[in-house]
Amino acid sequence: MNHERIAVLAHEKFPDRAKTALGVMRYGDQDVRAVLDRDRAGDRVRDHVPDLADAPIVDSFADAHAAADGDLDALYIGIAPIGGGFDESWRGDVEAAIETGCDVVSGLHYFLNEDAELAALADEHGVDLVDVRKPDDDLTVASDASGDVDADVVCTVGTDCSVGKMTASLEIVAAARERGVDAAFVPTGQTGIMIAGWGNPIDRVVSDFAAGAVEEMLVEVGDDHDLLVVEGQGSIVHPAYSAVTCGILHGSMADGLVLCHAAGREAVHGYESFDLPPLADYVDLYEGLATPVHETSVVAGAVNTKDVTDDATAAETVADFADEVGVPAADPVRDGADRIVDGIVDAGLGGGGDGSGE
Amino acid sequence: MNHERIAVLAHEKFPDRAKTALGVMRYGDQDVRAVLDRDRAGDRVRDHVPDLADAPIVDSFADAHAAADGDLDALYIGIAPIGGGFDESWRGDVEAAIETGCDVVSGLHYFLNEDAELAALADEHGVDLVDVRKPDDDLTVASDASGDVDADVVCTVGTDCSVGKMTASLEIVAAARERGVDAAFVPTGQTGIMIAGWGNPIDRVVSDFAAGAVEEMLVEVGDDHDLLVVEGQGSIVHPAYSAVTCGILHGSMADGLVLCHAAGREAVHGYESFDLPPLADYVDLYEGLATPVHETSVVAGAVNTKDVTDDATAAETVADFADEVGVPAADPVRDGADRIVDGIVDAGLGGGGDGSGE
Repeated sequence: MNHERIAVLAHEKFPDRAKTALGVMRYGDQDVRAVLDRDRAGDRVRDHVPDLADAPIVDSFADAHAAADGDLDALYIGIAPIGGGFDESWRGDVEAAIETGCDVVSGLHYFLNEDAELAALADEHGVDLVDVRKPDDDLTVASDASGDVDADVVCTVGTDCSVGKMTASLEIVAAARERGVDAAFVPTGQTGIMIAGWGNPIDRVVSDFAAGAVEEMLVEVGDDHDLLVVEGQGSIVHPAYSAVTCGILHGSMADGLVLCHAAGREAVHGYESFDLPPLADYVDLYEGLATPVHETSVVAGAVNTKDVTDDATAAETVADFADEVGVPAADPVRDGADRIVDGIVDAGLGGGGDGSGE
Repeated sequence: MNHERIAVLAHEKFPDRAKTALGVMRYGDQDVRAVLDRDRAGDRVRDHVPDLADAPIVDSFADAHAAADGDLDALYIGIAPIGGGFDESWRGDVEAAIETGCDVVSGLHYFLNEDAELAALADEHGVDLVDVRKPDDDLTVASDASGDVDADVVCTVGTDCSVGKMTASLEIVAAARERGVDAAFVPTGQTGIMIAGWGNPIDRVVSDFAAGAVEEMLVEVGDDHDLLVVEGQGSIVHPAYSAVTCGILHGSMADGLVLCHAAGREAVHGYESFDLPPLADYVDLYEGLATPVHETSVVAGAVNTKDVTDDATAAETVADFADEVGVPAADPVRDGADRIVDGIVDAGLGGGGDGSGE
């Protein structure tokens, strides 16, 4: 999966309800030549999100094709309805993309490859339908190989789902590279996989293979880098998703953990009858659970302050978190991840902090 | 899946390497009319396992059919090669079973329903191929329904895999029923599902749905009983299988936990470079992890002393465990599960210990 010039489908949802589209646009290497949103056709990306690379917002794939002078490799589905289904109103755009020789990349639960019409059309035009949420068939149980990779491994772990673990992971990699550490992102969810162009969607892997699917990725790239940052998922005390979290925690055999939290979050997102435990409990639980498999500790924190409008209050929130947990912390979006990388490097990870990254 | 008279296939492995066969024979309601083991044909079950219901050991399904006077409902595959494949030397027996109108029940990774020849033959003869390891297609994420079931819920949790959690669960149910508690077993693995005739194989469920698949079972039977005993899997610090464990722990929202341990086990089974933590650490981890989702505690212990030959030493081992963990404990096979049920009832679970079970 290696696309240089893409269009991103985000009908009726750009930008606020198009999390996958924004992730790919902000962090992917792909050149986004157009965004499909029939409600905002005629606008530009920067009219809505000033800090993204600009591109036209168009009504259809035909318009995207024209706006890109016919020079597109792929159409990425950048939104997901509740339930992960395929919205039939997108079919014309997907067919048009296939017919012009574009691959189509999707993180939906609904697999494009199992849609007989789309599969036949893709076959006819020699393009790939890439269902990033469909796990490889050859995954298996973890052996004990994660502990043997050359790279140091950091895993982002959360106090809840949707606190910014993917963003923190990507910002940590960027900040580490800035200071010369050869760091790489290890994606575990559909948006991360679209951004990075590879990875295993751990939430769709059978639970017996969850740790093994993380191990398989670390073994694949572990000898090529000095620091791997594994994208965490969910939370270890999430009433529905903790199995995913636990599989990633043990499968990564992380040398250090970055605790991610959304400022102001007091109850589990979508499961509001469950209160979040105190931060110190998370530290104890993550460290206590991980250590029998691989000695580790929380070395830094990432605080998502997007719901805090005032910069001074946001800074105070981050400082309070750092005090409470006893590690360096930052909002990786607001502040950059440099202080988080400080915590990682201070723990001796990523090449020992000599700045060479080798 | 409701079979009254069955034959069990255990070629070349009965009894010591036929864990599934033994589980079904010991705990299932089915009347086992014959065991297929071509290496021991002519022997009787009691020649090898004195405390099981007796039955002839035969060479083939044809012989089983004859021994049972043609009165069989099903053939159960009671063994699994490493990797869970289908041994082609069994095909004749499976075909013969289908041709005489028997269902075939299998816990293999290899799904009989995906074998075109067997599927066609089953279709022709109007029988079911039951792949107990294939999860239902309609499983989804946990909602928060486990906490609402009427029954009290106990979950067996382990210091490792293969310590006897299924056996402990079944013996607890039997001992609880003995004293009038309306208890039921909630199976989560292939042997448990074969024994109980229903259940979700949590290790084969996608990790996002692991907790939800447990919840679905509790909701199905929770209002019909006073005590549900959920079969745990793996261990929360297992390097490969902890995701399964964690999904069951949170999905069950257990009111009490029974900690299961194999006497003398010091390292993770099959992953011997990982030491088992001290028992007290397991108590802290299981309770600490479960409680943010549902308040719980370890209320009893099950110690598997099968590798301890001397009764007095076994009793001492169990007593040491009880002292160390601070709860009633027993070897449910050697001693029966009565002391374990004491711990459950003392914790106010299963109808408050009034003996009525209602």
